[in-house]
Amino acid sequence: MQFFSRSEKEKLLRQRAIVIWLTGLPGSGKTTLAFTVAEKLTENGYFCQILDGNILRNGINRDLGFNMNDRAENIRRAAEISKIMIGNGIITLCSFISPTNKIRNIAKEIIGQNDFIEIYISTPVEVCEARDSNGLYKKARKGEIPDFSGVSSVYEKPEHPDMVIDTSNSSNELDSQRIIDFILPLIRFK
Amino acid sequence: MQFFSRSEKEKLLRQRAIVIWLTGLPGSGKTTLAFTVAEKLTENGYFCQILDGNILRNGINRDLGFNMNDRAENIRRAAEISKIMIGNGIITLCSFISPTNKIRNIAKEIIGQNDFIEIYISTPVEVCEARDSNGLYKKARKGEIPDFSGVSSVYEKPEHPDMVIDTSNSSNELDSQRIIDFILPLIRFK
Repeated sequence: MQFFSRSEKEKLLRQRAIVIWLTGLPGSGKTTLAFTVAEKLTENGYFCQILDGNILRNGINRDLGFNMNDRAENIRRAAEISKIMIGNGIITLCSFISPTNKIRNIAKEIIGQNDFIEIYISTPVEVCEARDSNGLYKKARKGEIPDFSGVSSVYEKPEHPDMVIDTSNSSNELDSQRIIDFILPLIRFK
Repeated sequence: MQFFSRSEKEKLLRQRAIVIWLTGLPGSGKTTLAFTVAEKLTENGYFCQILDGNILRNGINRDLGFNMNDRAENIRRAAEISKIMIGNGIITLCSFISPTNKIRNIAKEIIGQNDFIEIYISTPVEVCEARDSNGLYKKARKGEIPDFSGVSSVYEKPEHPDMVIDTSNSSNELDSQRIIDFILPLIRFK
């Protein structure tokens, strides 16, 4: 239902579009990595877009909360928007806790397995909590935030991620370069 | 919250992004016009995207029906997606019945008045019904489709559209050129 097909759009942008899906605990480093990867890709002439909880929950998903149903709906919509994006040839970096296999499978099914690269940011909860850059873990431990992944709500490790990155033992520079090296062959225009 | 600002994205695409919002009755010619305009713009080097009821209701809005609340939610989400699109520098053509001033104002407020060009496709209901290219008016008259704009549900004319086009007395070629002439000065990169 595009006036220009996805492949025509990809040709215009001289790239192949995929969705790079970063999943992990709050504070694991997903969004920082997504931003660094997007900057590097853009400097190399690729056209990309970031979707994350902040962007969507302040906009299209402002009607949703954090119980498991709303989390699933949050991810369903994120995946549908990602699908529109790759239909336009745009490389899309998604940074979402997306805490369960069921929820991540919703995304994968909507986007399509061939276009869905799952990267598990495996930083341990102790490290995420020690960082606690925005004070959310502290609030969650006090019980002020219900349904907080890793504290009062489940986080299931992905079963077969395409890549695993633990940001506790590395630098953002090295981690982002690992992702770049992995995805460059996938997005290169042929 | 973009890694690259909208103006940087617009610079990459050498265009200024706006939302061109086509409103009108079912069968008025909105989507046909949107596709022709998008094709012409793309041939001229502009990067654009179409959003319409088909695209969204088969994807992100598959959970919505056609009562007035669901129509408003359909349009709210369309507007939020459009906003993400123009945040990426992409010219976005929206083709939605969007039947009431209230509903169109939701879209205008989300997108922002300066980025929202409202085009009223004013083709009279008799002409739309005589066309009835997909047989929906016939079904609506039989009562098989509840809440059908122009038959069993209200359609309010826009109060201050930027442009009015009645497709019953013209050709798709001429009508689309009128829209192109109107928007070219708005999307040209300066």
